[in-house]
Amino acid sequence: MKATVTVMLKNGVLDPQGKAIAHALGTLGFSGVADVRAGKVIELDLAETDPVKARAAAEEMARKLLANTVIESFRVAVEE
Amino acid sequence: MKATVTVMLKNGVLDPQGKAIAHALGTLGFSGVADVRAGKVIELDLAETDPVKARAAAEEMARKLLANTVIESFRVAVEE
Repeated sequence: MKATVTVMLKNGVLDPQGKAIAHALGTLGFSGVADVRAGKVIELDLAETDPVKARAAAEEMARKLLANTVIESFRVAVEE
Repeated sequence: MKATVTVMLKNGVLDPQGKAIAHALGTLGFSGVADVRAGKVIELDLAETDPVKARAAAEEMARKLLANTVIESFRVAVEE
């Protein structure tokens, strides 16, 4: 079972990577880009076959390792 | 309109970050993790209001800046 953990900086936390991307897009001629936020995505291939347990495991992994919950928030999506 | 670009290393391209995460999860006592792939997610806040045009713009941004299409693949999701 596949679980996808998406980790983003919390709103209000400065995102220099996002700002750099927004600036680079402007330089390349892309207009109408109001804001850019950059984050990480971690795709986990889990042996667990129960979606509820897989989600719980992925959330624990995110809390313990994948995300710094002081400045980052995360969301988990589970697909079979 | 919000567009989310997810950039992952192509299958077959070595992913050291994913391997490091898999190893760290094992060290922390998480078992049953068959594989981990790490990637980037870029959330774009676009002025464009037409979903088709927003998707096309995000795909062009991904091809020109956000992804290295030699070793990375990307997918775009658009939400209103």
